[in-house]
Amino acid sequence: MKNLLRNVSVLALAGVAAASAYAADYESYEAFAESDGYALFTVNNLWLLISAALVFTMHLGFSTLEVGLTQQKNTVNILFKNVFILAAGVLTYAFWGFNAMYPGFADDSAGIFAMGSWFGVDNADVSLMTDSYAAYTWWTDFIFQAMFAATAATIVSGAVAERIKLSSFMVFAVILVGFAYPLAGSWKWGGGWLDRMGFYDFAGSSIVHAFGGFAALACVLVLGPRKGKYTKDGKIKPILGHSMPLATIGVFLLFLGWFGFNGGSVLSADPLLVSYVFVTTALAACGGAIASMATSAIVLKKPDLSMALNGILAGLVGITAGADSVGVFSSIIIGAVAGVLVVFAILFFDKIKIDDPVGAISVHGVCGIWGTLAVGIFGDFSVGVQLIGTLTYAAFAFVFSIIVFGAIKAVMGVRVSEEEEFEGLDIGEHGQEAYPDFSITSR
Amino acid sequence: MKNLLRNVSVLALAGVAAASAYAADYESYEAFAESDGYALFTVNNLWLLISAALVFTMHLGFSTLEVGLTQQKNTVNILFKNVFILAAGVLTYAFWGFNAMYPGFADDSAGIFAMGSWFGVDNADVSLMTDSYAAYTWWTDFIFQAMFAATAATIVSGAVAERIKLSSFMVFAVILVGFAYPLAGSWKWGGGWLDRMGFYDFAGSSIVHAFGGFAALACVLVLGPRKGKYTKDGKIKPILGHSMPLATIGVFLLFLGWFGFNGGSVLSADPLLVSYVFVTTALAACGGAIASMATSAIVLKKPDLSMALNGILAGLVGITAGADSVGVFSSIIIGAVAGVLVVFAILFFDKIKIDDPVGAISVHGVCGIWGTLAVGIFGDFSVGVQLIGTLTYAAFAFVFSIIVFGAIKAVMGVRVSEEEEFEGLDIGEHGQEAYPDFSITSR
Amino acid sequence: MKNLLRNVSVLALAGVAAASAYAADYESYEAFAESDGYALFTVNNLWLLISAALVFTMHLGFSTLEVGLTQQKNTVNILFKNVFILAAGVLTYAFWGFNAMYPGFADDSAGIFAMGSWFGVDNADVSLMTDSYAAYTWWTDFIFQAMFAATAATIVSGAVAERIKLSSFMVFAVILVGFAYPLAGSWKWGGGWLDRMGFYDFAGSSIVHAFGGFAALACVLVLGPRKGKYTKDGKIKPILGHSMPLATIGVFLLFLGWFGFNGGSVLSADPLLVSYVFVTTALAACGGAIASMATSAIVLKKPDLSMALNGILAGLVGITAGADSVGVFSSIIIGAVAGVLVVFAILFFDKIKIDDPVGAISVHGVCGIWGTLAVGIFGDFSVGVQLIGTLTYAAFAFVFSIIVFGAIKAVMGVRVSEEEEFEGLDIGEHGQEAYPDFSITSR
Repeated sequence: MKNLLRNVSVLALAGVAAASAYAADYESYEAFAESDGYALFTVNNLWLLISAALVFTMHLGFSTLEVGLTQQKNTVNILFKNVFILAAGVLTYAFWGFNAMYPGFADDSAGIFAMGSWFGVDNADVSLMTDSYAAYTWWTDFIFQAMFAATAATIVSGAVAERIKLSSFMVFAVILVGFAYPLAGSWKWGGGWLDRMGFYDFAGSSIVHAFGGFAALACVLVLGPRKGKYTKDGKIKPILGHSMPLATIGVFLLFLGWFGFNGGSVLSADPLLVSYVFVTTALAACGGAIASMATSAIVLKKPDLSMALNGILAGLVGITAGADSVGVFSSIIIGAVAGVLVVFAILFFDKIKIDDPVGAISVHGVCGIWGTLAVGIFGDFSVGVQLIGTLTYAAFAFVFSIIVFGAIKAVMGVRVSEEEEFEGLDIGEHGQEAYPDFSITSR
Repeated sequence: MKNLLRNVSVLALAGVAAASAYAADYESYEAFAESDGYALFTVNNLWLLISAALVFTMHLGFSTLEVGLTQQKNTVNILFKNVFILAAGVLTYAFWGFNAMYPGFADDSAGIFAMGSWFGVDNADVSLMTDSYAAYTWWTDFIFQAMFAATAATIVSGAVAERIKLSSFMVFAVILVGFAYPLAGSWKWGGGWLDRMGFYDFAGSSIVHAFGGFAALACVLVLGPRKGKYTKDGKIKPILGHSMPLATIGVFLLFLGWFGFNGGSVLSADPLLVSYVFVTTALAACGGAIASMATSAIVLKKPDLSMALNGILAGLVGITAGADSVGVFSSIIIGAVAGVLVVFAILFFDKIKIDDPVGAISVHGVCGIWGTLAVGIFGDFSVGVQLIGTLTYAAFAFVFSIIVFGAIKAVMGVRVSEEEEFEGLDIGEHGQEAYPDFSITSR
Repeated sequence: MKNLLRNVSVLALAGVAAASAYAADYESYEAFAESDGYALFTVNNLWLLISAALVFTMHLGFSTLEVGLTQQKNTVNILFKNVFILAAGVLTYAFWGFNAMYPGFADDSAGIFAMGSWFGVDNADVSLMTDSYAAYTWWTDFIFQAMFAATAATIVSGAVAERIKLSSFMVFAVILVGFAYPLAGSWKWGGGWLDRMGFYDFAGSSIVHAFGGFAALACVLVLGPRKGKYTKDGKIKPILGHSMPLATIGVFLLFLGWFGFNGGSVLSADPLLVSYVFVTTALAACGGAIASMATSAIVLKKPDLSMALNGILAGLVGITAGADSVGVFSSIIIGAVAGVLVVFAILFFDKIKIDDPVGAISVHGVCGIWGTLAVGIFGDFSVGVQLIGTLTYAAFAFVFSIIVFGAIKAVMGVRVSEEEEFEGLDIGEHGQEAYPDFSITSR
């Protein structure tokens, strides 16, 4: 199997190398547009833009998944948070994050800390738009990465739902997306120290998902569980969501968006590699679904829809680190293991009274680590280095969030009042209901 | 009009012929990636991948359409079935279906039966990935066809909803998708006997839709109607769905996905042919909508939203066989006829007590046959051969399903208990409700 | 900043010029398909087709946004209207609108009035399909523009919801989409008098949005407010919607579709320009969201989800006229101003008793004008000419709609009976409920 992987990786380079010849070799965009390489550049660039649109769709998926799995009375609040994260995430990424994350560390730097400002760059320098990019423009790079960036905070949003103060969440989300994510991302994707060490994380099992999952864990610890979730006599009381159709729509949209999340991370439209990534991504998701269906049927006695949905996501998170570099059969195994893991992780966190309404810590945190390690186990990378890398992201996100969210707690509080939590955050924070006119004819 | 059609078909070949020159002429992928033909290959391949993502979206469309048109108490069950079908469909297609469906029958074979195993193929043989493909990689071909494959069982899912035993459905769906569909599909798309006979079915009015629709008919006959649907004194009691917004979302997503279903079936990004297929597909859907709106307004006295939605789907199913080869004006007529047909077919099946909660037999079965015949009537193909082909698919799916589903009935039963049907399959099969926390303030 | 803009515009032309060399230089499509330029033509064409699919998605977005923001009892009616508009819009555009909108005015004509019939054209003339198109086929052009066309009537649909007679709306929508929109559109996009004057409207802030918004204003004036909205003692009684999740899904889908609406309006896949348009579009939407969140928090005391959603749409409408030609920082300002404007406009129209259930007049009408002017303020175009152009579209749509909708009122009435309005249009017009089986277990 490993032979195949090596072949695929080597072949992939060929496409990018061919494309990279174009960008810098022309005096002007006009000359480039009439060159032989322009058509290939155009299709590569187009795929990245479409991928950005697909990753955008994931934000809708996260929104409906979260509201589906939570109580009706907190629906407006969750939707508002998700709209805010997307908007604030893209803007902070423009003002600071993008250049901080892709600084192009000088060879003699430590490769740890970067600063950057998008608007500090001289926009009028047109050369910026194409130079040194193999297969896409500077603008394409920005929009694709900006759509990724907001994801980390979105992951947190689900775990802290139904009791977090809106203003506190907004402050934390901006700091996480605007500062912590690009800083940590630069260690690998910006050419920093983890990259130099040989760490591999294709589309972000660690950089996006474990990062988000362990930030979520820290926030949940600071915040505490929802009232009534764990009774004084030690029992766990399930707090059920309000719409499985919305949750299912969310997961399907996330699956769809992942074709752009992973497929776009090829960073070109290389036919062999993008199609290969589509296949491993889909197989892992399907493997995850079947595995968690079976696990839930055995462990919980009934085939559980929430677990099936989490199984899809678990498989997707799991394959994200190695979608381009593990074998197709391995991709099914990686997804299936993630699908089993996620069921036990959700039960485990609930047992130790870590209250995560949507299972985000299990799906993104646990399966993010698993996926990163799997690249070492099933691919050609060092398991040790993969372990260092993924633990770095998990630990950094955790410690950063404990400190920052803890500070926010000290300064402005992080939790709504008990009355507001009981009444619902929709009324408390927004003065709106999610379904104000929904009236069912009595029958 | 036929002149145009011929022109379009001939022109289409030019694009594929131009592309087919590339694949086999290079020693390595690296050499190919630096060749003149690589950019065109890349855009062709990209369109097929995007089409696969669009067809994926249809599974979400089927899911929300089905739950919208059925009772609230069976929502979790239907969503679970749809997640399962997608996951199991893709995996069985990988393990067996794909190679069975595209065997490349030897010239002297009967072209009827094929066996195949994906993992039996030596994956490490990189040549597999590009050789003998005109416009896309082997992986692209797999993922596009795999997304198609699960559709047949999804069609059945709607017709048998609200009373079928989950485990029995799962067994049947796997056999149908994993075995019957690729076998029958190979007769045309795999170069089998129907292909040799001159049968034409562009994107699957028969191979996917009539196949699925008549499998559904067989299952409904084996299963019987929902309790209370047909009273003892011969009356038909409508059992209404629980969310028209979900149903409408489903139909719009199916319409969207059909741009990939039909547009991707061009098997390249040929500008003339793909754009032509987009136009015929959209015109047929619009014709179907208007026709069924008018028909329902006349026959049912009120313009009916469910019928309008079914009219869109009817038009889409109808145009699927000939989207590349009938005239644009013909496409409107084909869609409009389908839109009228579907209203009468739904009323007819209800009258003869064949209980199909979502109208799947009418939409996919009846309009699938109509669409296949329409290629003969409005295009350059033999009506007789089209009739043989479409009846073959309908009859094979029907007989196969009667036997297999009948055997499943004998061995493990196919129907939930009367209590479970009354209480709802969500509680009975999954122990979950679809809207556990949905509470309406009394007003 | 203006230097950048000029550069971007100039560069954009290079790509199109390079592509435009291809189309007309070959004797046959076969020869063209083997030429060097075919790959670039194919990717340009593909992007336009994908954009058409994205704009199609906006119709689903409009549908769920509208039903989300209105009462449950009118849901079926709104969904039906939206399905009808799409179907009728595409068909009328095929029969008449497309050729009327793009007549290619002769140099010595007034450039004001055009007639056209699609089916009057000799379809069998294959040269039509490619000649004189730089980057896409005739069919691609049709389907992309047809998806745009139906949007104008969809905007009206929201403003007149919950009290308009179905048949009257259908007649008006067909006349608006089939006649008024292509006529007015031809003044700019068809090369008519506004185009000659130097008016600029990249993707239709005026041609689509202000047009639709002011048609809506006229209809609302003719129709009057919903019963009970404005009490006799001068109070405004809010009539709340029935599903904020549906509204949010709608806005996210509209945002997604806008990547095709604006990105496709580049009319090629030019890497620099399409990526630039993606960035300005996203930044404006995000700026609009943050601005309206802040404005609503200040003015309404609570951060309002509906306003946040309207802020996204306001930013998108605002950037539509200049997405290719204003600076990135300007795009944030344009979006933010639109996001502030929309909050005050909604409050203003409510205060003067113009009852617009979804805020369509404010979002599309007011922000459409703002966006058109902004191209003059932040870009290289004359503010005066921009003002003339946008007022022309607003005034034409308003006067046309007052006359035509007034005539429909005189002939067949435009409003449902008071009983029907109270009972809901779902029962009154369609005899259907939106959630017939939705039953909540009492708790």
